[in-house]
Amino acid sequence: MTKRPEPPIVTLTTDFGLADPYVAAMKGVLLERAPGVTIVDVSHDVRPQRIEQAVFITQSAWPYFPDGAVHVAVVDPGVGGDRLALALVTPRSSYVGPDNGVLSSALPDDARPQAGAGPVSLPDGYRAFAIANERILRAPVSATFHGRDVFAPAAAHLAIGLPAGELGAPLDTVVALPPLRARNEPDGSLRARIVHVDRFGNAVTDARAADLPPGALVVEVAGHQIAGPVPTYAEARGPAALVGSAGYLELALPGASAAAELGIEVGDEALVRPRR
Amino acid sequence: MTKRPEPPIVTLTTDFGLADPYVAAMKGVLLERAPGVTIVDVSHDVRPQRIEQAVFITQSAWPYFPDGAVHVAVVDPGVGGDRLALALVTPRSSYVGPDNGVLSSALPDDARPQAGAGPVSLPDGYRAFAIANERILRAPVSATFHGRDVFAPAAAHLAIGLPAGELGAPLDTVVALPPLRARNEPDGSLRARIVHVDRFGNAVTDARAADLPPGALVVEVAGHQIAGPVPTYAEARGPAALVGSAGYLELALPGASAAAELGIEVGDEALVRPRR
Amino acid sequence: MTKRPEPPIVTLTTDFGLADPYVAAMKGVLLERAPGVTIVDVSHDVRPQRIEQAVFITQSAWPYFPDGAVHVAVVDPGVGGDRLALALVTPRSSYVGPDNGVLSSALPDDARPQAGAGPVSLPDGYRAFAIANERILRAPVSATFHGRDVFAPAAAHLAIGLPAGELGAPLDTVVALPPLRARNEPDGSLRARIVHVDRFGNAVTDARAADLPPGALVVEVAGHQIAGPVPTYAEARGPAALVGSAGYLELALPGASAAAELGIEVGDEALVRPRR
Repeated sequence: MTKRPEPPIVTLTTDFGLADPYVAAMKGVLLERAPGVTIVDVSHDVRPQRIEQAVFITQSAWPYFPDGAVHVAVVDPGVGGDRLALALVTPRSSYVGPDNGVLSSALPDDARPQAGAGPVSLPDGYRAFAIANERILRAPVSATFHGRDVFAPAAAHLAIGLPAGELGAPLDTVVALPPLRARNEPDGSLRARIVHVDRFGNAVTDARAADLPPGALVVEVAGHQIAGPVPTYAEARGPAALVGSAGYLELALPGASAAAELGIEVGDEALVRPRR
Repeated sequence: MTKRPEPPIVTLTTDFGLADPYVAAMKGVLLERAPGVTIVDVSHDVRPQRIEQAVFITQSAWPYFPDGAVHVAVVDPGVGGDRLALALVTPRSSYVGPDNGVLSSALPDDARPQAGAGPVSLPDGYRAFAIANERILRAPVSATFHGRDVFAPAAAHLAIGLPAGELGAPLDTVVALPPLRARNEPDGSLRARIVHVDRFGNAVTDARAADLPPGALVVEVAGHQIAGPVPTYAEARGPAALVGSAGYLELALPGASAAAELGIEVGDEALVRPRR
Repeated sequence: MTKRPEPPIVTLTTDFGLADPYVAAMKGVLLERAPGVTIVDVSHDVRPQRIEQAVFITQSAWPYFPDGAVHVAVVDPGVGGDRLALALVTPRSSYVGPDNGVLSSALPDDARPQAGAGPVSLPDGYRAFAIANERILRAPVSATFHGRDVFAPAAAHLAIGLPAGELGAPLDTVVALPPLRARNEPDGSLRARIVHVDRFGNAVTDARAADLPPGALVVEVAGHQIAGPVPTYAEARGPAALVGSAGYLELALPGASAAAELGIEVGDEALVRPRR
């Protein structure tokens, strides 16, 4: 087992927003059951029920936390239905959330499905449990708010170093989403899509740096032809493509929102080609 | 006295938003005077000067925190006027804010007024003080920002275990709002109203689970007839009524915003009747 | 050297917003390198790349934190370009961010330029360093996200009490913005401007309390004549001028947004004159 940080760390990623009392109720339960815990908000602005957006955000945040942190993600359209509540223990950290793929970025890319969400087997050194132990959950468990009644108690349990196996029965498979990957075309181009627009209006694609054609390239997106890669925002003179801090190709416009000015939206196709 | 958590916990609920420096200034004062304190934001998105919204939010958050936490709520249209600054000590926790009803959810329902905001006597085991001790307040106290100059210092004082009685003179009454309760009609129906719309678009009424007519019911709201209760969001097929995590009847639409799709707004009347 | 708080405190002010994973990645790095650190968000809602807004916000927040806190501000249009990464050590605290003026409120007013941003000499007792030590930075340093790779590691280094001199070469000058000051006119009036509109719609000017004409005054702004100063919001009957909690004259409207109702915007001129 990984060494635990002291005080313990729990991170939270949800689609609850910060105006409603939901996130605070989770924090109250965490502090009640894991006294002194350090709680970090990753984001509560995931668009309601957009599981894949939570996966994108967590894969750019979770890797920077100390080993032994407990990461909670709750985007849970099936709350109260028959989806399982999942605790996933990896060689580095523990992860808690609904078993609907929202914890996918805790898994190595090659353990995730090639296409479509679905159950996958656990890699060596990974364990999973279906959270169900009534001595650990809040009683009664509400039908609509498992963040407070199921996931926060389970995260506190793990954060203070209690055995994951006490949470419930072991699982052989967990639900996962495919890794974010642009598709290689036979002609050497990459068929990418816009997966995120950040606060600056940078439009992030699913084309990883390692998969880009070597040398100069051009991106066709939303009717524009955008050249790159430039090394930094500061060197862009007008719309430009560059590899962002998460390792994906993105489209930027210095001092302005590329997405707004160029009409680029999440879901748009972006064709990445060598520049002639 | 209640055992205090270690490190001490202070929660904050305000209408200050998170863009301005106001909340951070309060946190600076708290950390200066209660070193190591754990500060938790409940919500800073209360609509400006909407005291009753703060009461709704805090009643769904405060109960989940450990005993001995200090809860601050500042929604303060009368700042600088003659309203008192209140420290309320209950058998479980301490509460700090303007004496304008914003701390109402710290009181038992039966100690609050039946209708209209107004002064109420304290139940047994509750104590209240008018915060005024200049040795505790920041000097000089500004005319416009008591969150920083009055309430944060008072909360820090309580969080580190100093006597509440040092804050100022004891009070026999405090201002409170009525509890959130739908009105029982002679025909067995409940005349409820919409008191909150959450980030998912769920429209929460003031009809408590315990007050609902038994069995199937129908809610008339905004020109719609909505049946329920369904046990979970996952089981709703179209608009449905269900008891939410705060114990109140709410109207939901799976995968969408009930409020937006059905035109339901805060303040709307919702008539809850047995289904025939 | 100042005594450090225990646990150490790091505050964060950025234009990153809270929806994206950027702030969380910085917090992960801080917790990895400064275990147990208390992290406080000042604001992440600085408008993208508006350095002067960050200076306004930090000058109303930083002074309230305990001595020895480390304050990070990242508004960084030149990231990846040739601006330096700055660590500024003052008699009270340490400050980390790009050397573009965003740390200006850490300097005394009289050490800042009279007009226009530019390099200034350090006052006695102040030291500055160009953060560059590769043993401290994350490797590799990304071209676009120095908050995570440069500023968070440097802040953690200072927060746990390691010598600032290890971060990089000492600097004799740092870039600073002029202090917020209205201009005195020969006729005794003050030519001010609106520098901030807060969540309540209060329109804050750059006219400091100490610079106001004595006695009753009138503010001409956006075609209105607004009298003051009133001592508190509670005493305003209609639009009024008063000295706000940051020590600047502001325009307020009780129970409503002065900015929205009166059409006042950031950048508007506000002429402050003695009332006849």
